[in-house]
Amino acid sequence: MSDYDSVSADIETEEEIPEEHPRYQDLLTRHRIEAGVEKGITHLQGMHAEGRGSAFDYLLGEETIPSADAAERAAAAHLLLADRPVLSINGNVAALVPGEMAALADAVDADLEVNLFNRTPDRIEAIAEHLREHGADDVKGLEADARIPNLDHERSKVDADGIYAADVVLVPLEDGDRAEALDEMGKTEIVIDLNPLSRSPQVADVPVVDNIIRAVPTITEHARELADADEADLRAIVADFDRERALEAAEERIRSGDL
Amino acid sequence: MSDYDSVSADIETEEEIPEEHPRYQDLLTRHRIEAGVEKGITHLQGMHAEGRGSAFDYLLGEETIPSADAAERAAAAHLLLADRPVLSINGNVAALVPGEMAALADAVDADLEVNLFNRTPDRIEAIAEHLREHGADDVKGLEADARIPNLDHERSKVDADGIYAADVVLVPLEDGDRAEALDEMGKTEIVIDLNPLSRSPQVADVPVVDNIIRAVPTITEHARELADADEADLRAIVADFDRERALEAAEERIRSGDL
Repeated sequence: MSDYDSVSADIETEEEIPEEHPRYQDLLTRHRIEAGVEKGITHLQGMHAEGRGSAFDYLLGEETIPSADAAERAAAAHLLLADRPVLSINGNVAALVPGEMAALADAVDADLEVNLFNRTPDRIEAIAEHLREHGADDVKGLEADARIPNLDHERSKVDADGIYAADVVLVPLEDGDRAEALDEMGKTEIVIDLNPLSRSPQVADVPVVDNIIRAVPTITEHARELADADEADLRAIVADFDRERALEAAEERIRSGDL
Repeated sequence: MSDYDSVSADIETEEEIPEEHPRYQDLLTRHRIEAGVEKGITHLQGMHAEGRGSAFDYLLGEETIPSADAAERAAAAHLLLADRPVLSINGNVAALVPGEMAALADAVDADLEVNLFNRTPDRIEAIAEHLREHGADDVKGLEADARIPNLDHERSKVDADGIYAADVVLVPLEDGDRAEALDEMGKTEIVIDLNPLSRSPQVADVPVVDNIIRAVPTITEHARELADADEADLRAIVADFDRERALEAAEERIRSGDL
């Protein structure tokens, strides 16, 4: 790839990235991930994953396509209808949208739970602290006193009163094995992923094919707008959402988009 | 992205990656870049660039398409015809294909020159040493006693008897500004890049749209096969290569490929 380094990588704070730069969103995303690695909250592999996502975002036109907006509205309705909604946080999510996830948790009255592929006590604590600095009241995932069935030991760790007991979970940038195991537990699963054919969006009840830095604030906007909606209206939004059509629309955009 | 972490990232040596794994090439690439970061030869941003490339490679089908093979053959012919061929090495190239670049330099009697976007004396020396460990005899780029015109100071640094004086340069994974500036110097430029619409392949005389870990050994194979070809045959290969058709074929494959 060539254009990745057409602006200096030596940026200290994100305010230094010119907002009028044609690749502003990509540069901001990359800067936040890099800062996350330096802060010990993002695994080095997260930088690779983000790069991979950025290529798909480029193919999508780096915008929230209409089918993604519909998925984000359905996600908001699911979260508002849930008895025990939980938002799952990994190293990339924490680096990219810490304040945005705290705001969404607040808007839909959900818990935030840290769940890591490469789980170490230091990283968990650093992420929980990072979330608190960005407005999160309470962060789960430190207890890890329950296990997701059919998953290897480290990745199966969850809080008994968090993801384990949740009816609706938002799992952004989730690995495929874990997304499948959560699906098998019967949970309503909302996945944010830029590749519509990845396993995670394929098993999701609501696949959101969008960049997380656009998707999370948009779900929050929908949730605030729907805060006073009655249950029948929320159920209608959920029923109207067509996951297959959303996946197809994203694939179609990637294939025909502005390469 | 989800499948990036469907195999543990905690691999110590590349021999631990199972060769029969369906994502072997991707895992190997990622491991080498990660090791490069840890060794101080690859910038953290290189991990992001590699992730981005891997998405395009996935769309290409993770194989050398026929038009890329034709480009690789034309690249070999150009390098054999050159009076002063130079192969440019950055942090990702050094991490991914150090031995392969040394073998190509040997096959076409070219110089290797280290050229970095984020240039520090420590990184340059680490990369030169890494190349020597992988069989490179002589590594240029440490003198930096000449400048590419029309480029900012740090990125313009080259060796007077290296890239500055070269007639044919192979610049894999090059940034767009530098590729343009080299083109303006009138050099025959061979670029390896997985996105056919990046600026670097767009300005190249020979755009090779292929993964560098496949492209470099294939150029070397062609060069060895053509070692005894006469000049007229080499010139015919160069003349027959159609850069526009190669770029179009790559884009077509990405759009219609196995998403």
